Amino acid sequence: MNPEDQIYKIRHSLAHLLAIAVLEYDPEAKLAIGPVIENGFYYDFEFSKESPSQKDLKNFQKTIKKLASQNLNFTKEEISEKEAREIFKDQPYKIELIDGILKEGSPITIYKTKDFIDLCEGPHVSSTKEINPDAMEITHIAGAYWRGSEKNKMLTRIYGLAFENKEELEGYKKMREEAEKRDHRKIGKEQELFFIDEMVGKGLVMWLPNGNILRNEIEKFAVEMEDKGNYVRVTTPHIAKEELYLTSGHLPYYKEDMYPPMEMDDGTYYLRAMNCPHHHRIYVHKPHSYRDLPIRMAEYGTVYRNERSGTLAGLLRVRGLSMNDAHIYCTKDQIKEEFKAVMGMVQKYFETFGLTDYWFRLSKWNPDRPDKYINEPENWEYTQNIMREALEEMGVKFTEADDEAAFYGPKVDVQFTSVIGREETMSTIQLDFLAKERFNLEYKDKDGNDNKDVFVIHRAPLSTHERFIAFLIEHYGGKFPLWLSPVQVSILPVGKDHKEYAYKVFEELKNAGIRVSINDADETLGKRIRQAKLSHVPYFLVIGDNEAKSKTVNLESRDKETLGQKTIEDLTTLLKEEVYSRK
Amino acid sequence: MNPEDQIYKIRHSLAHLLAIAVLEYDPEAKLAIGPVIENGFYYDFEFSKESPSQKDLKNFQKTIKKLASQNLNFTKEEISEKEAREIFKDQPYKIELIDGILKEGSPITIYKTKDFIDLCEGPHVSSTKEINPDAMEITHIAGAYWRGSEKNKMLTRIYGLAFENKEELEGYKKMREEAEKRDHRKIGKEQELFFIDEMVGKGLVMWLPNGNILRNEIEKFAVEMEDKGNYVRVTTPHIAKEELYLTSGHLPYYKEDMYPPMEMDDGTYYLRAMNCPHHHRIYVHKPHSYRDLPIRMAEYGTVYRNERSGTLAGLLRVRGLSMNDAHIYCTKDQIKEEFKAVMGMVQKYFETFGLTDYWFRLSKWNPDRPDKYINEPENWEYTQNIMREALEEMGVKFTEADDEAAFYGPKVDVQFTSVIGREETMSTIQLDFLAKERFNLEYKDKDGNDNKDVFVIHRAPLSTHERFIAFLIEHYGGKFPLWLSPVQVSILPVGKDHKEYAYKVFEELKNAGIRVSINDADETLGKRIRQAKLSHVPYFLVIGDNEAKSKTVNLESRDKETLGQKTIEDLTTLLKEEVYSRK
Repeated sequence: MNPEDQIYKIRHSLAHLLAIAVLEYDPEAKLAIGPVIENGFYYDFEFSKESPSQKDLKNFQKTIKKLASQNLNFTKEEISEKEAREIFKDQPYKIELIDGILKEGSPITIYKTKDFIDLCEGPHVSSTKEINPDAMEITHIAGAYWRGSEKNKMLTRIYGLAFENKEELEGYKKMREEAEKRDHRKIGKEQELFFIDEMVGKGLVMWLPNGNILRNEIEKFAVEMEDKGNYVRVTTPHIAKEELYLTSGHLPYYKEDMYPPMEMDDGTYYLRAMNCPHHHRIYVHKPHSYRDLPIRMAEYGTVYRNERSGTLAGLLRVRGLSMNDAHIYCTKDQIKEEFKAVMGMVQKYFETFGLTDYWFRLSKWNPDRPDKYINEPENWEYTQNIMREALEEMGVKFTEADDEAAFYGPKVDVQFTSVIGREETMSTIQLDFLAKERFNLEYKDKDGNDNKDVFVIHRAPLSTHERFIAFLIEHYGGKFPLWLSPVQVSILPVGKDHKEYAYKVFEELKNAGIRVSINDADETLGKRIRQAKLSHVPYFLVIGDNEAKSKTVNLESRDKETLGQKTIEDLTTLLKEEVYSRK
Repeated sequence: MNPEDQIYKIRHSLAHLLAIAVLEYDPEAKLAIGPVIENGFYYDFEFSKESPSQKDLKNFQKTIKKLASQNLNFTKEEISEKEAREIFKDQPYKIELIDGILKEGSPITIYKTKDFIDLCEGPHVSSTKEINPDAMEITHIAGAYWRGSEKNKMLTRIYGLAFENKEELEGYKKMREEAEKRDHRKIGKEQELFFIDEMVGKGLVMWLPNGNILRNEIEKFAVEMEDKGNYVRVTTPHIAKEELYLTSGHLPYYKEDMYPPMEMDDGTYYLRAMNCPHHHRIYVHKPHSYRDLPIRMAEYGTVYRNERSGTLAGLLRVRGLSMNDAHIYCTKDQIKEEFKAVMGMVQKYFETFGLTDYWFRLSKWNPDRPDKYINEPENWEYTQNIMREALEEMGVKFTEADDEAAFYGPKVDVQFTSVIGREETMSTIQLDFLAKERFNLEYKDKDGNDNKDVFVIHRAPLSTHERFIAFLIEHYGGKFPLWLSPVQVSILPVGKDHKEYAYKVFEELKNAGIRVSINDADETLGKRIRQAKLSHVPYFLVIGDNEAKSKTVNLESRDKETLGQKTIEDLTTLLKEEVYSRK
């Protein structure tokens, strides 16, 4: 959001109207700051009386709407230090802000609305008639430290939503409601997928049995796809000596983002923050001929990164990540085909997960910024052209972005719109022409000469388990397709007499490789059916007299209603086909 | 080996005879120490002339045999410091040893043989006639620092083998030859299974694609077995906060064996050296009812241990280990059944790997050593009895060992004799009644009361990937059964005209999930067949005119000679059945 955008000005102006409303409630309130945020605005206050109640917030909203429907002007004025200190003499936070402005040598400006004056740079709407009173809402209250520091006083922050029109506000609220329903932390807890344990550490995911099934199924899918794509698989340690990262260049530049070093009797070790250096060392552990290339080396590798503990939350801000990693070592001539194969793999994944609204973004270098990019103009031009050609030949939607490449080469990000309407980046395909120098990647060409032009493609179509499972939880709202569901079938015997047959069905399905549970608790069938539905299990079987007698099951689907009586054999065939198709 | 054993005395006496032989070769040689080792003896010397050649070693051996066939006495004498300093005045290493003896306050003793005198505690044979000259051999020479420290002078160590009789010597030599042929480092390199990279770090295994297939197949087998045994699977981080290890008790007691701590912004972190504490935290993350138990929690978890870098070698002394780990949480009443189920699993594994000569060893506490064992006499008695009963009911061979339990409970080790005749321990099943207190493991019993008596069984039937794969390499001598073989089938087209059909066969086998390679190099068929045989690939297919015409393959087996013409369909059925049976 640019301050010149109309929506910025609207939100900023509403913060001032909020301050007016608050001062009617508590004329002695001290005002801190009132900035614009992604979906509206907030203002921080120190109250001289009790904090406003839910009812007070409603009143503030009413006042703001009334103010907005009047034709009030926002006028800007530059004032002297003396004037400023006089105007804000009862507002200690504003005085502190004035001191800061003076220190910077910036001019002191205020905005006036009715008789309210705020220390403010702007910009604002010129009149409140530019604000749609139906497109705003005061939402909630929260505590916030002055200047974000625990050492300062805790203030009261009041939040508001604001958009240009009512439809946008309603759209946003609906999206947020949907996002809350689909929140991966909420569903992760309900379905016992994972938890974070303070005693183990922040940002370190403990995968419970149900979540582990998701991990395994995703990994199995990746291995299948990579097998088809003629990848080989390796396993490498989670730590390495300093020498490795001095060679790769991660040390010293990336040191802050790594866990601190461990001194051992033979040198300094680090937890790895990426898998590539280990893979490069596997590449060079023996000489290669042109016949060996391309080598596609895959590992679902776990890495550890030093994120500040205060920023860690759920699966999206973590310190331990398991990456759907692979590195493709190829000659210059092979880049295009390898790139296309990786993009094809991405397309297949997106199709499986039912994502149709996606596009590619080619991030290129900037020839005018030699500091930011490896100095190999020929390779930049060649590879960017090759990648563009590949995108064109694939006939996919794509955009281009200048000055957005990595240091070591251009990349393609895959963008998509999530179910709740957010634009997200999932998969990244990165070209690397720095590794060959740093790790002496080479091969013998047809004439027996050493060729040092080994290009590396870094790719992680399924991102990390942490990020991808967070995405899947939201994407499916917890209603996972059969192949991913921790429990695939739940069996509900009607009464005691049906237990024996129910357990027989249970055993048969289990032996057929179906993840099955049985609910024979001492509760009514109706209640157990409701539980099954709430748990989002894809199928459940009701087993009563008929079924026990005819050796069948009565199949109910989460998504497709009653499917009726089936033999166990038909059922397992049906389930296995659905699992196999990953639909 | 006990110093009172005859074989100890024989070996020790041979070391003296070696010194006599060496002094004939170099009368000015300085003598260091000459101890007994597992298969013989050695002696360290500082030579005044060039080190002995292979021929000289032969001469030493001849001299020793001659001395041994005489009737020379070994006589012991205690001497004063003054005498000692006089006798050894030209032997600086002996003088240093004398200083050490005096510091300890021990008596100075010497042994005399002919006119040779050595500073020595003994014991020795009384006469060389007790030594069988045909049961010894001087084998080789190596460098060794005085007192094992790099700061000291490098001496020359001469090794000898020695046994009580010739058959034992020959048996040992044969075993060693077999062990060398089957050495996991040698085969690991030949078959490109793994390597250790100094830049990544010592004791950290880099698993190459072929070795990774072994890991995956073993893990798949374990998961299958554990699925059948109703285990659940989890994945937990490789690091944890100090608090976790203070709770478990690994800190401070086990600190030296762990990697050093990492200071983060929210506390101190450690690389984990075991998986149990993470699993215990999963157990307690929610309340449990008696209906939930037993919970069998599995994870092929990787741990890191701080071994001294100098001790690290191959797969057997490593710093990173991936364990076939699981923890069973059960009530007191469930211990026996759970124990039996784990033992049954071990039996199934041993059967699959063709190990028939194995037995169990029950390690018990010692009631008289309260410092060494958790003070719960009732639990010790109860669980040891339960385990003995379980062993008896299973009808397996077992022995009992007092004072060999872990601190926290009795254990059962599974012992077997390896193909080269070494006794080894592979699987351990350990009972733990300390964890429940440290981690507050509990459950609600039938009456709704909190029961704090949750017993934990630690079990790792397949040990670690590192140790188990080292074992498998030796066990099969690199000739892995079909299901484990990195390449299962190699295709050899006779000539150029057969390539097209050969590649069709290749694709069909690959799509059927067979690990297949093709060797269509520009070499004679005979040479390629020899290569296939040398590589130990279980099956290879020769494809010529007949096969191309009749759309068949000509199947050759590594173990079973020619199996003749097969259709591709018959071939895949045959291979899949063999893989499935894991024979």
